Amino acid sequence: MPAPSPETLNAVLRHVDSGLDQSRETLFSLLRIPSVSAQPAHKPDCDRAAAWWRDALVGLGFNAAIHETAGLPVVVAHYPGPADYRGPHVLFYGHYDVQPVEPLELWDSPPFEPQLVDGPRGKRFVARGAVDDKGQSVMFLEALRAWRNAGGGIPARLTVLIEGEEEIGSANLEPFLLANKAALASDVALVSDTAMWDVDTPALTTRLRGMVYTQVILRGPKRDLHSGTYGGSALNPINALTAILGQLIDASGRIQLPGFYDRVLPLSAAQRAQWDALGIDDTATLAEIGLTAPIGEKGLSAAERLWARPTADINGIWGGYAGPGSKTVIPAEAGAKVSFRLVPDQDPGAVFESFKRFVSERLPPGARAEFACFSGTPGVEVSTDSPFVHAALAALTEEFAKPAVLIGCGASIPVVMSFRAALGIDTLLMGFALDDDQMHSPNEKFEQRCFHHGIRSHARLLAKFAAIN
Amino acid sequence: MPAPSPETLNAVLRHVDSGLDQSRETLFSLLRIPSVSAQPAHKPDCDRAAAWWRDALVGLGFNAAIHETAGLPVVVAHYPGPADYRGPHVLFYGHYDVQPVEPLELWDSPPFEPQLVDGPRGKRFVARGAVDDKGQSVMFLEALRAWRNAGGGIPARLTVLIEGEEEIGSANLEPFLLANKAALASDVALVSDTAMWDVDTPALTTRLRGMVYTQVILRGPKRDLHSGTYGGSALNPINALTAILGQLIDASGRIQLPGFYDRVLPLSAAQRAQWDALGIDDTATLAEIGLTAPIGEKGLSAAERLWARPTADINGIWGGYAGPGSKTVIPAEAGAKVSFRLVPDQDPGAVFESFKRFVSERLPPGARAEFACFSGTPGVEVSTDSPFVHAALAALTEEFAKPAVLIGCGASIPVVMSFRAALGIDTLLMGFALDDDQMHSPNEKFEQRCFHHGIRSHARLLAKFAAIN
Repeated sequence: MPAPSPETLNAVLRHVDSGLDQSRETLFSLLRIPSVSAQPAHKPDCDRAAAWWRDALVGLGFNAAIHETAGLPVVVAHYPGPADYRGPHVLFYGHYDVQPVEPLELWDSPPFEPQLVDGPRGKRFVARGAVDDKGQSVMFLEALRAWRNAGGGIPARLTVLIEGEEEIGSANLEPFLLANKAALASDVALVSDTAMWDVDTPALTTRLRGMVYTQVILRGPKRDLHSGTYGGSALNPINALTAILGQLIDASGRIQLPGFYDRVLPLSAAQRAQWDALGIDDTATLAEIGLTAPIGEKGLSAAERLWARPTADINGIWGGYAGPGSKTVIPAEAGAKVSFRLVPDQDPGAVFESFKRFVSERLPPGARAEFACFSGTPGVEVSTDSPFVHAALAALTEEFAKPAVLIGCGASIPVVMSFRAALGIDTLLMGFALDDDQMHSPNEKFEQRCFHHGIRSHARLLAKFAAIN
Repeated sequence: MPAPSPETLNAVLRHVDSGLDQSRETLFSLLRIPSVSAQPAHKPDCDRAAAWWRDALVGLGFNAAIHETAGLPVVVAHYPGPADYRGPHVLFYGHYDVQPVEPLELWDSPPFEPQLVDGPRGKRFVARGAVDDKGQSVMFLEALRAWRNAGGGIPARLTVLIEGEEEIGSANLEPFLLANKAALASDVALVSDTAMWDVDTPALTTRLRGMVYTQVILRGPKRDLHSGTYGGSALNPINALTAILGQLIDASGRIQLPGFYDRVLPLSAAQRAQWDALGIDDTATLAEIGLTAPIGEKGLSAAERLWARPTADINGIWGGYAGPGSKTVIPAEAGAKVSFRLVPDQDPGAVFESFKRFVSERLPPGARAEFACFSGTPGVEVSTDSPFVHAALAALTEEFAKPAVLIGCGASIPVVMSFRAALGIDTLLMGFALDDDQMHSPNEKFEQRCFHHGIRSHARLLAKFAAIN
């Protein structure tokens, strides 16, 4: 198949432009489904979100089905493409699940009633999932629709995979990939779940941190106790937990788990030079959120700290009485959720074991600790020297009339590692989020201009892929 | 007035015995009122509990009224006693408020539906407030009723004061005492809110720890952040809070606030000898609640650790995500409730200031801390060489046919210090709780035999008081 003509591409892009309101309504219908994967009560909503994707893809001519897993279902859809297609078989990946919305009182509008509001950069969409990842994955869907309606058909061989456990660690995805290797065989994966460099500058993300997300519950007395009667005699699990977790990071920002840094690969000189050229300074970003100075290891650039160094963050802590006023209790237990962002070549399993040992060795007499690990994925680097990366850079550069940059990302997209491990393919991370989109926070939003550029960029990328032989 | 005759006392005690079921029903009607002072939603219930007391005392011939305060109301009732009464004017104190009931799922029955159940020591009452303090204060009421019905009238000059903020620090009580000094003038206070030595051995409590109950909220970023995007750059308030609170107590059990021990009075040799004779070993008590070894300062007896040494306990901690599964959030804030048990002559205000400084000096750049102090009361020692203590020891020894012992208590009863400061009187602490009554915990209970002995002991004490000239 010859590459689509410039005229055809222009017709597709014009269709994207004229259909933007309709594309937004399509996204809003998905945003109204409260598909919170972390909360079992939302299981039926997750099923509805999966059905939404199956129906949308069937409507575009895909052969689509919902597949049950040990957790939440996966949608897989196939499109054979033109008979003379010679380009790569592309596996598009997205996720229909979203983060919990708590604390609800900090939202300006109900999180599952998407709002179109005016912002300093034009219209924006406000809802849980507006950008992560419903907004970003619907961009690809709308690019396909434009090709189908205005370009004479979708010009590519595609598999679409939409999962529902990304926000809780994708525990069932890699087994699914391994069990369905043949059906999912493809040449490159395409994921839209990352950020732009800034609102005018597109980016490809070639480095991601991994993560181990753990939970520890520290148990002491069999029941809650009166702190007057027992204070000075009975173990207090909150005292013990804070004493232990308080030792996790030293004053210089180094994480104290034994062996934690043994397999942290140093940054290559080339990578360092490229990132230094970006001139990242997180002081301004921090000022926007009310902070004055970066934490983390001393003496490192912001890019290195955020993209190439591991972290330890307590994401949640609880125990005892948290209501108004006072309650003089020594509680039976206290717990915390502790996650570690990882970089190549740290081993998630080894970090979890090291954390368990770190806590267990510090338990006072009578304390018992119970551990859980909700996800573990290593950090990843994607090769930048591939026709797929070149195609994406070209598509982005044409769309924005400005060169795209290669960046890292501090967050984890476990599926990138899974695609490499299970399917042997690399992943293109072409995303359109902005740093202030409040992903995972109250009032998550997505700029309409980013959504619009994203649909057009995906439409352009399909033309570039079709030109690869 | 001559002392009541032994025959009269016996008639009163028989009336107590035959009326026990009715006394229990009276208590149960009070236990059904969910008067949780810490939770503003229960304000109307606190008002109902105050009205219950006013009506009960009016029914016994008292001149009783409800007095509003800046917080929850106080009930004050007066009874002039026989015209020829020469004994002490007694101020009886109790509190109608109870602790919060959370976690509700750990209760075997609804906390405000009192149950009469069989236990290893006979019948027991299970409800929030069963012992603390509704059960203990109703014992006094029922002793009065027995004197009125079977003893020819209440043989004493009494003021009854029932407050509603004991569980939240009694902040409004001392101002009320100061504003009503004349109306509350009396010779000795009587409080039933402490424990027996064991189920067969009565006790008077002559030493109480004080308390400062604080709250700290540590704020970092203006909003919740994604821990991938911001981890290694943005301050995490939970990391910072645990790092600071983790330094509060060193490995030897010493509290690290500067100057904290400067005014901790050493135990007198006499007090130490008396307590040593009790042979307290908290290992068995700890084993009952699933713990193996005492915490606290090393090298001290259990009695000294529990009654004469200060503590630091984190009574509650919160921040970030505490739901099921994972959420990769760096929260905007984290908080903790931290209380210090105090002993003579520590100054509650100075301890609060020291805690604020301790936290503030350790705040990382960009963090702000906000403090609150919910209560502050010093530790107290009551003189044991008084006719009132002798009267109470005699009443208890006759009731139990076994000498009463003098003990300390690790908990705080701020009113004891307030009575001394505002009214210039000492307090008799004659209580009938047991160590396993689960005060402040789920399934709080009170043994019926303790309730029964308590009514009888109060009845005897009134006769002893009447014999004092």
